[in-house]
Amino acid sequence: MNGQAAAGNHPVDADRIWADLMDLAAITDPGRPYTRRSFSPRFLEGRAWLADRFRAAGLETRIDPAGNLIGRLEGTEPEAGTIALGSHSDTVPDGGRFDGTAGVLVALGIARTIVGQGIRLRHSLEIIDCLAEEVSEFGLSCIGSRGLAGALTPQSLDLRKPDGESLREAIARVGGDPDRIAVVARDDIRAWLELHIEQGRVLEEAGVDLGIVTSVVGITRVEIEVSGMADHAGTTPMHLRHDALVAAAGMVAEVRRLALRRIEAGGGYFVATTGELTVTPNAANVVPGKVRLLVEARGEAPDSIKVFLGELAQGTRRIAEASGVTLSSYRLLSEAPPTPFDPGLVSTLEAAASRNGVSFVRLPSGAGHDAVFFSRIAPTAMIFVPSRAGRSHCPEEWTDKQELALGALVQFDAILELDRSG
Amino acid sequence: MNGQAAAGNHPVDADRIWADLMDLAAITDPGRPYTRRSFSPRFLEGRAWLADRFRAAGLETRIDPAGNLIGRLEGTEPEAGTIALGSHSDTVPDGGRFDGTAGVLVALGIARTIVGQGIRLRHSLEIIDCLAEEVSEFGLSCIGSRGLAGALTPQSLDLRKPDGESLREAIARVGGDPDRIAVVARDDIRAWLELHIEQGRVLEEAGVDLGIVTSVVGITRVEIEVSGMADHAGTTPMHLRHDALVAAAGMVAEVRRLALRRIEAGGGYFVATTGELTVTPNAANVVPGKVRLLVEARGEAPDSIKVFLGELAQGTRRIAEASGVTLSSYRLLSEAPPTPFDPGLVSTLEAAASRNGVSFVRLPSGAGHDAVFFSRIAPTAMIFVPSRAGRSHCPEEWTDKQELALGALVQFDAILELDRSG
Repeated sequence: MNGQAAAGNHPVDADRIWADLMDLAAITDPGRPYTRRSFSPRFLEGRAWLADRFRAAGLETRIDPAGNLIGRLEGTEPEAGTIALGSHSDTVPDGGRFDGTAGVLVALGIARTIVGQGIRLRHSLEIIDCLAEEVSEFGLSCIGSRGLAGALTPQSLDLRKPDGESLREAIARVGGDPDRIAVVARDDIRAWLELHIEQGRVLEEAGVDLGIVTSVVGITRVEIEVSGMADHAGTTPMHLRHDALVAAAGMVAEVRRLALRRIEAGGGYFVATTGELTVTPNAANVVPGKVRLLVEARGEAPDSIKVFLGELAQGTRRIAEASGVTLSSYRLLSEAPPTPFDPGLVSTLEAAASRNGVSFVRLPSGAGHDAVFFSRIAPTAMIFVPSRAGRSHCPEEWTDKQELALGALVQFDAILELDRSG
Repeated sequence: MNGQAAAGNHPVDADRIWADLMDLAAITDPGRPYTRRSFSPRFLEGRAWLADRFRAAGLETRIDPAGNLIGRLEGTEPEAGTIALGSHSDTVPDGGRFDGTAGVLVALGIARTIVGQGIRLRHSLEIIDCLAEEVSEFGLSCIGSRGLAGALTPQSLDLRKPDGESLREAIARVGGDPDRIAVVARDDIRAWLELHIEQGRVLEEAGVDLGIVTSVVGITRVEIEVSGMADHAGTTPMHLRHDALVAAAGMVAEVRRLALRRIEAGGGYFVATTGELTVTPNAANVVPGKVRLLVEARGEAPDSIKVFLGELAQGTRRIAEASGVTLSSYRLLSEAPPTPFDPGLVSTLEAAASRNGVSFVRLPSGAGHDAVFFSRIAPTAMIFVPSRAGRSHCPEEWTDKQELALGALVQFDAILELDRSG
């Protein structure tokens, strides 16, 4: 925390937000830290608690067709549309206390301030707890925001959990109306503002209060299967080997080398990772016969991912040939383009930060968020608050109360400005 | 097959050896190719079949205290001692038809020839089916040959299978006498000759009939744990990463580089392998936080392994430092020195091969065998027959009948020579 805002009296009550965060975190699967998996009994318990809080704050509370929990304050000019803010209340297994909930509960704190101070907004204000942002048991993430944006396909609704329940049935069970999802893509939202923890170390390293998020990176995943020959590790001389792991190790190094080359070439944020590597047969006395790698590239610029993919295909082919192995499979598993956020909304957030003496950097989000789907139907931007040591999706996840307070302050101020000018 | 022996009439009946091999292979766990795990009902069924064959060949058949099945032909000069030959009849799961059984059934074929031709040897002759050569459910290999050589410790006898049975109990169950193992280390054996499939491609590449084995390599295993930081693969810029897999990949390459350096430096056969590599958490969107590697080095010369281990320790430390990760564990798991075979016996085998026009190369064995333990109590040597494409421990394991015939011929001739001169 660096800005002069640290010393000031904030309109948004951070102590109350903090108490809410700890109360919601206490609703967790027995004996596990911070687990409210979407669609589970514990998730519904958290939602019931949240709905009570929404109502207690004076918000008109409902569940929309896609299963999102929404608290609404009607504006003075209904035709002005809606300013929406929030995030999600579901967690990964053994997750943290801030991912998603920070955005929902800061938004609730802001709504309380607006009601408490008797502020009458022209726009309606909605606090949205998006359904199932984390990858759910259906193998899908961002279910509520997809639904709200008209991006939930009938095929998706037919997905089934391991226990046999379909997504359609599950959405109905949590209070949604799956048959109406297709017809209710929202067209009234004038802005989606999502506050979220960074889940990285960029803000901490930069020593700033906040991040103003300019885009969400594109994400591409490639699956590579390297096939050599599973020979006896004692009886096969080095020159007769077709070692799939030696080749795969070269590819892991290549992935990093090519990522660094993209960064040197400019074009903004770029990362590439070999996150999964599985060896077969994986025995001490057998030369590895097969290796499966999962390579992920994320970048701000669509071009940088494209160039990387071309170089990766070439590099892995070259390494396979030199190592006497084959690429028995090479598949593009998924390809999501970058999502640039609304420049006007980004400027509004920056101006609000500057007005309040809150230090910040612009940065792209390396992780996906509900904001990606909101951006299809409305001007969208995000605020990141720092994550201690970058930890996330684990019990050690942490953001200071004062950091949340500054994020709340900037978001609150931006909303007032949007309401005046929008 | 290259030598002039191919055209000759062999004293040892290869058709009968082949028929025995196929008969024994047919005794396998239902629905699985070639599985007779030591101590299992199927193993005992195979042994019962073998004991019948031994008796039918005129051998005095018994099980020794260590659980080895032995068929014996008494010699004319009891004080001359015993020439022993054989291998093992247990298999790995889903193994082949030749590993171990080839040595036992060629030996049986030789005994049949000796009996059939009315040859009276001065030495006693024993055909030994060593108990549990493959790594058993007790986690131990070469149980019978260890026992016979006085190398089975009381601690080993207390090892237990997953079902709770101790090795002591299991040896008694298969007909051994565990309490007598310690007192019966054999001192009467004048030679142990083991024929085995090569389990590699050296003979095939060299285009020769046989391998005469000069030693068994030393085997050393090192477990390395690389610890970095399991960061979000999207939100953690490349320069802030501590990627355990990138570091481990460098170590995999280093293992190969250092092995090639040992070979260039001379000092005989040397191989090194990273056979196991396990990534944690192994998820597409997480920078690998931990990697466990198992590195194995095998070499003919004790010095070459020692130098390799020194360079490996240095190389991995250097890579860890350069990659911003730590070696959270670095353990020597096991260390078995090379076993040189008896030079006189090796010469006897070479002379027998030359006399019969059988082409051969000298080579070290990259794999362990019962012969390692026999070499502690008797002059020992081995014959390798070729393995098609080096395949072993799998249903595709294959050696031609004619190749077995040449191995049998050389072993038979060497025995007659040993009996004359020994």
